[in-house]
Amino acid sequence: MQTIALNTKSRPSTVLCGAGAAKQLDTILDGKDVFVVTDENVYGLYKDFIAENFGGAPVCVLPAGERHKNRRSLFTILDKMLQARLRRNSTLVAFGGGVVGDMGGLAASLYMRGIHAVQVPTTLLAQVDSSVGGKTAIDHRGVKNVIGTFYQPEYVVCDPLFLRTLPQRELKCGLGEIIKTGALDAKILDKLERNAERFFDFSFLEEITADCVRFKAGVVEKDECERSGLRKCLNMGHTTGHALELFYKRRSHGEYVLIGMLLESYIAEKFDICAHDYAEELRALIGKVLKRVPRFENIAEAAGLALYDKKNQGENEVSLILPAKRGEFAELRLTDEDYIGSVEEIAGGLA
Amino acid sequence: MQTIALNTKSRPSTVLCGAGAAKQLDTILDGKDVFVVTDENVYGLYKDFIAENFGGAPVCVLPAGERHKNRRSLFTILDKMLQARLRRNSTLVAFGGGVVGDMGGLAASLYMRGIHAVQVPTTLLAQVDSSVGGKTAIDHRGVKNVIGTFYQPEYVVCDPLFLRTLPQRELKCGLGEIIKTGALDAKILDKLERNAERFFDFSFLEEITADCVRFKAGVVEKDECERSGLRKCLNMGHTTGHALELFYKRRSHGEYVLIGMLLESYIAEKFDICAHDYAEELRALIGKVLKRVPRFENIAEAAGLALYDKKNQGENEVSLILPAKRGEFAELRLTDEDYIGSVEEIAGGLA
Repeated sequence: MQTIALNTKSRPSTVLCGAGAAKQLDTILDGKDVFVVTDENVYGLYKDFIAENFGGAPVCVLPAGERHKNRRSLFTILDKMLQARLRRNSTLVAFGGGVVGDMGGLAASLYMRGIHAVQVPTTLLAQVDSSVGGKTAIDHRGVKNVIGTFYQPEYVVCDPLFLRTLPQRELKCGLGEIIKTGALDAKILDKLERNAERFFDFSFLEEITADCVRFKAGVVEKDECERSGLRKCLNMGHTTGHALELFYKRRSHGEYVLIGMLLESYIAEKFDICAHDYAEELRALIGKVLKRVPRFENIAEAAGLALYDKKNQGENEVSLILPAKRGEFAELRLTDEDYIGSVEEIAGGLA
Repeated sequence: MQTIALNTKSRPSTVLCGAGAAKQLDTILDGKDVFVVTDENVYGLYKDFIAENFGGAPVCVLPAGERHKNRRSLFTILDKMLQARLRRNSTLVAFGGGVVGDMGGLAASLYMRGIHAVQVPTTLLAQVDSSVGGKTAIDHRGVKNVIGTFYQPEYVVCDPLFLRTLPQRELKCGLGEIIKTGALDAKILDKLERNAERFFDFSFLEEITADCVRFKAGVVEKDECERSGLRKCLNMGHTTGHALELFYKRRSHGEYVLIGMLLESYIAEKFDICAHDYAEELRALIGKVLKRVPRFENIAEAAGLALYDKKNQGENEVSLILPAKRGEFAELRLTDEDYIGSVEEIAGGLA
């Protein structure tokens, strides 16, 4: 198990990563007034684990799925926290995937203007990405993550133990963010290329998760609230990915990130941000996880949703974080016309 | 006009205090994408001011009053922000009293995980207290301020211009917090005692407002999120005040703070926290504003609500911030029995 410190100006956060991390919950929560947030799927699988590790704490079980990441679920949590008479020194444990983590984190940041939060991510995606860095959110009126806070959890506990109950599709989802991190950090990229046949091997996932968390912690420490521009790099593949996710809804977030990265790698080439060979290298890695690219109907309309993304500050401009060379990225701003036209052309060529 | 810096770890805030402050809005908002939150009362009085100073910006007009400081109003603001297609670099201006400031600040802190906020408090209470320091909130299920954030506004603009349209009762409300500050800071107390006949004089209010803001800024800089205990001092009179406010609802927040301070000054004496003469001195000041203490029915039940206050961490204990001597305060923790019994006895003696 590795201990990774994430020290922002707002409050310190500690990430415990690797086998045995979950065993530390005992110590972390010792003597604390605990409240658990989870969802129906996770509760079904880990009812006993919850009873043993959060002994007697009230448990708020939410309906599962991104479509429940909304105002109603947020207030379900807050109401249960009030019923449980939580105080400012109580601790909320978000035990589940990204949706549980985002909403649990938001509720913890809002209740009495902020109580302690501990994230126990149970999916690969949440372990490598969403549980670390303090972003919390709900979706609202069709806009992803438009209501939320930056609020660092006291601890994040990433144990590969929980990955064993994940369907293959969920592993792919996390691999999307792992490959994205590789496109930002040369050492992680090397490791991914050397281990391209071990992507679904738990011992490899345990190791690469810690690498990705350490990389993300470094970025978040320098730009917690996405103000300087650095943290934006973590959005590589997400502009196009989010737009397609919003429009088509069928696949998981991680798969849309992979598809976004794939399409954007061609955009990077087209606008001379990235050389052909390096783009091909990244696409080869993406191909290890994303076996085939679906055919998208009305992709121009879908891509148009990128204009509504909160990262796009201008009215008719889309900002893209693109791979430039190993370990380097660049931001490209395109007019809506250029962006939508490019996505349409590239997707057409792949179909 | 005075410029008071409030530099917390999270983000810097600047308070402009005094005649002419409102004229600075032009410069502050120059070139910004602005969104205004206000309420029906303020809008009725300042429609022209809003049109001139926030030229063309969308205005969200909320129903007036503390009973609208709730989830519904919060989402009214957030929905209008989405409709106005605000971006992360947009600026929300909260133009009104404490309720508008608390909810506008909360919406600004949540929309896209935080956009710029400017507070333009139009009541004396909001100018001396609630607009400064970054506390935002809504009430929920009968609990005051139970959902909120700590989020510093970029600017707070306190102009005595707005005080001229306030009813006398609203001035009293602000004077409650001013006298509270006097009980925490010896210099402010001296000034209040020297000017006890000028409490309703605008030039005095302008001067003392800046003093109170400077005092509060110093406290908030040292303990933004009320963790070290220092910021708790600002809650003097509030434990009892809030409980009575919740139970009786009839009077304003500032009046309940004065009543709370009055009752708690006797508690301070009873438990040997404060000498009789100093307590009498404070009560003389309170008496300049609070002409008579109302008779309270069922005060034991009302005082019992203090147990639900978010500042009280224990199950059956009430924390009180009490005056000790000039410029000094002390925290006293009482069992619910001792606290309720004392309030009942003291209020009975005053009636």
